[in-house]
Amino acid sequence: MMSGTEPSSPSSARTSKGLMTRRSSKPSLFSDGLVFAGGAGVALLVFWVVSSFFSRVTVVDPSAFPFSVSSSAAFPDLHDRDPPGATFYDDPSVSYTIDRSLTHWDAKRRDWIRLHPAFGGYGRERVLMVTGSQPGPCRNPVGDHLLLRFFKNKVDYCRRHGIELFYNNALLHPVMNTFWAKLPMVRAAMLAHPEADWVWWVDSDAAFTDMDFELPLDRYRDHNLVVHGWPHLVYETRSWVSLNAGVFLIRNCQWSLDFMAVWAAMGPMSPDYYRWGQLQKAEFKDKVFNESDDQSALVYLLLKHKDRWGDKIFLESDYYFEGYWLEIVGRLENMTAKYAAVERQVQGLRRRHAEVANGAYGRLRDGHLSGEDGAVSGPNGWRRPFVTHFTGCQPCSGDHNKMYSGESCWEGMQRALHFADDQVLRDYGFRHADLLSGDVQPLPFDYPSTA
Amino acid sequence: MMSGTEPSSPSSARTSKGLMTRRSSKPSLFSDGLVFAGGAGVALLVFWVVSSFFSRVTVVDPSAFPFSVSSSAAFPDLHDRDPPGATFYDDPSVSYTIDRSLTHWDAKRRDWIRLHPAFGGYGRERVLMVTGSQPGPCRNPVGDHLLLRFFKNKVDYCRRHGIELFYNNALLHPVMNTFWAKLPMVRAAMLAHPEADWVWWVDSDAAFTDMDFELPLDRYRDHNLVVHGWPHLVYETRSWVSLNAGVFLIRNCQWSLDFMAVWAAMGPMSPDYYRWGQLQKAEFKDKVFNESDDQSALVYLLLKHKDRWGDKIFLESDYYFEGYWLEIVGRLENMTAKYAAVERQVQGLRRRHAEVANGAYGRLRDGHLSGEDGAVSGPNGWRRPFVTHFTGCQPCSGDHNKMYSGESCWEGMQRALHFADDQVLRDYGFRHADLLSGDVQPLPFDYPSTA
Repeated sequence: MMSGTEPSSPSSARTSKGLMTRRSSKPSLFSDGLVFAGGAGVALLVFWVVSSFFSRVTVVDPSAFPFSVSSSAAFPDLHDRDPPGATFYDDPSVSYTIDRSLTHWDAKRRDWIRLHPAFGGYGRERVLMVTGSQPGPCRNPVGDHLLLRFFKNKVDYCRRHGIELFYNNALLHPVMNTFWAKLPMVRAAMLAHPEADWVWWVDSDAAFTDMDFELPLDRYRDHNLVVHGWPHLVYETRSWVSLNAGVFLIRNCQWSLDFMAVWAAMGPMSPDYYRWGQLQKAEFKDKVFNESDDQSALVYLLLKHKDRWGDKIFLESDYYFEGYWLEIVGRLENMTAKYAAVERQVQGLRRRHAEVANGAYGRLRDGHLSGEDGAVSGPNGWRRPFVTHFTGCQPCSGDHNKMYSGESCWEGMQRALHFADDQVLRDYGFRHADLLSGDVQPLPFDYPSTA
Repeated sequence: MMSGTEPSSPSSARTSKGLMTRRSSKPSLFSDGLVFAGGAGVALLVFWVVSSFFSRVTVVDPSAFPFSVSSSAAFPDLHDRDPPGATFYDDPSVSYTIDRSLTHWDAKRRDWIRLHPAFGGYGRERVLMVTGSQPGPCRNPVGDHLLLRFFKNKVDYCRRHGIELFYNNALLHPVMNTFWAKLPMVRAAMLAHPEADWVWWVDSDAAFTDMDFELPLDRYRDHNLVVHGWPHLVYETRSWVSLNAGVFLIRNCQWSLDFMAVWAAMGPMSPDYYRWGQLQKAEFKDKVFNESDDQSALVYLLLKHKDRWGDKIFLESDYYFEGYWLEIVGRLENMTAKYAAVERQVQGLRRRHAEVANGAYGRLRDGHLSGEDGAVSGPNGWRRPFVTHFTGCQPCSGDHNKMYSGESCWEGMQRALHFADDQVLRDYGFRHADLLSGDVQPLPFDYPSTA
């Protein structure tokens, strides 16, 4: 701090109201102190805004300290205490259930976040993954074993990416079962997690096979629902498999509540359920079963009510937002070999690191892959598929589509799950002996540069 | 910012070296600017230290912004990039495997944290939960179904408490199987997670039945290993069930690595494995099987080498750090009724809230319970048990201890898992019809005050 400013001489000035203001001869240390405090205040404010913009959720548990700290502008909501101000939770008309309509959800969420500023996000969007399975044991003797492993796979992905995960095995609406059960779950999850910007439904038979890839959320900033699909198959071919409803990303907002209400109204809870089945069967020449299903319902809504819903639904096909297992599982060994070849050229990629440091290594790898021929998504490239979905395999019931054998489904799942697990286990020092084997071996130092 | 300080008059001073320093007549805005900047710098430094003390992990993903931000004193490690400075990971002699010794681990961890200050913690300890099961399907037809549900239970607990969870189903050492498999897993996890202060091993057949309770970590500040146990049963009765090794908390430090090496050396990987089995059988009159097991080994180490290890091992019995299911599952309905009675008296406890706000409600409930007669842990109280462990039920193999029937194990697990799920589902608007039922019902507003 500079010293040496001379004390200011007293002066006075006349204001428009005739009041005399007198500049007293305060010591310069006091004025320096005020300037210092002003700098401190502005810096804290700027730092708080900037770091909130950059940071993920910082949840502080006040049990970490024995005294209570009151909130102030510079310390955003250090407690996870619930402030007394009323939120939508205190409104009896607000319901978690899919059959009850809910309005002004965007404002309700915003008000909740205002009272819980630690969850404000400021540019970084929060994603809640939701998945689940039936309440009781699977009919397929190895069904629950497979569900357990697919669940572990999701837990691994979410841990690596700071995504919260909710696995539900309760039927939240007595007649909305099988594939319809996801809609009541997503509705309840949106209300339970107002801090979540997106809910990401992932079927129990879908696995993450690129553990580094992250959703390009900014790509979807003008949309509210993302599914893997192809517009020409929807609007021209009119196929019930023109998109896949087993993996979707849906924004936590009023549009989504309204959409899900319309979507669910084509399901078993609706008095028109049978009629919808007939309408879908008539519309989609390739649909083979009679009952209304959630996927056909979604395509139907796009076809018949494009103006109402279509502009907010993103049909993603640039990467495996959801990948068909049959075109993937045979290519996994080749991918491993190609990735290893890249890593042999770049010491930085072979460097061991903490699991929490994965983001940096994933981006480094991504940068090196970008220069490689063929390192693209899709059936003609060797880029790791983001999600591999075992559609038609029905691991829980065992009633797989007749075009696959139970053996090919089982083998495909082993490959995909071990392929993913290798990416995870690497940070724990191990890998599978081969993609069909449950056995693992310690990784040599500087893997994969040695043998 | 105060204005009005007069420009300082030029002055000069002679330094001891005879150099003239001239105070130039800079404008006072410049000197104010320096004072302002000084205030800003000090404020940022203080805020950084204080908020690091209070905050959990703040992991920032630089893909959130299009430009790269360099680290500075005021912005602690905004990237999860791995700095180029060498860490223990770059040392080929450092191994993830249990058979390789590792020294100076405390210093190695400290150095890693110094290079990754976002994970410094500063008072708030990080816990990594580790659990797992065998690579292949369970022999018991409903075994994997039960493992799936116990796994969901752990995921629910960890999500509510900001604890990371690693589920492993690979055998990391070819002969360290069954209950010995946990030691190689914990060793690998410690190295993969240097940011974790504690590793919390929880058996696959243990469930969290109090979703609010948090480990009183400060209670264990002078210890490195916590198990549920009773000193008199260890040192006087000399029973192999004087403690339970299915749930333990172990500090991520050199002591623990050394201890686990000695512990694991009584397992199948040791040439002395059979001898240890004989020694344990001779020592513990109530041990019925011949093979060396990890729990007897732990009691053995306490008995024979108390001076070497005992002072750092905490035998916890003040709460159900690990609870014996048989003395718990019959009391769960009564607990539910007692907790509901307390909640009927306190509107604040019935208030619906986001799942992320649970901490505050748990503490509020805890405060009200403290005044209630009988709201204590243990077989004579109705406090929710923290952990309910189905020792002897063997859900995966189905080879349950003959003193229990398969039915009582199954029923007990349904009760405990539904009891826990009710605490979770409450924030999603539902509860189970009863503790034996997979069916759920929507909660009425202001539950449990209405019927």
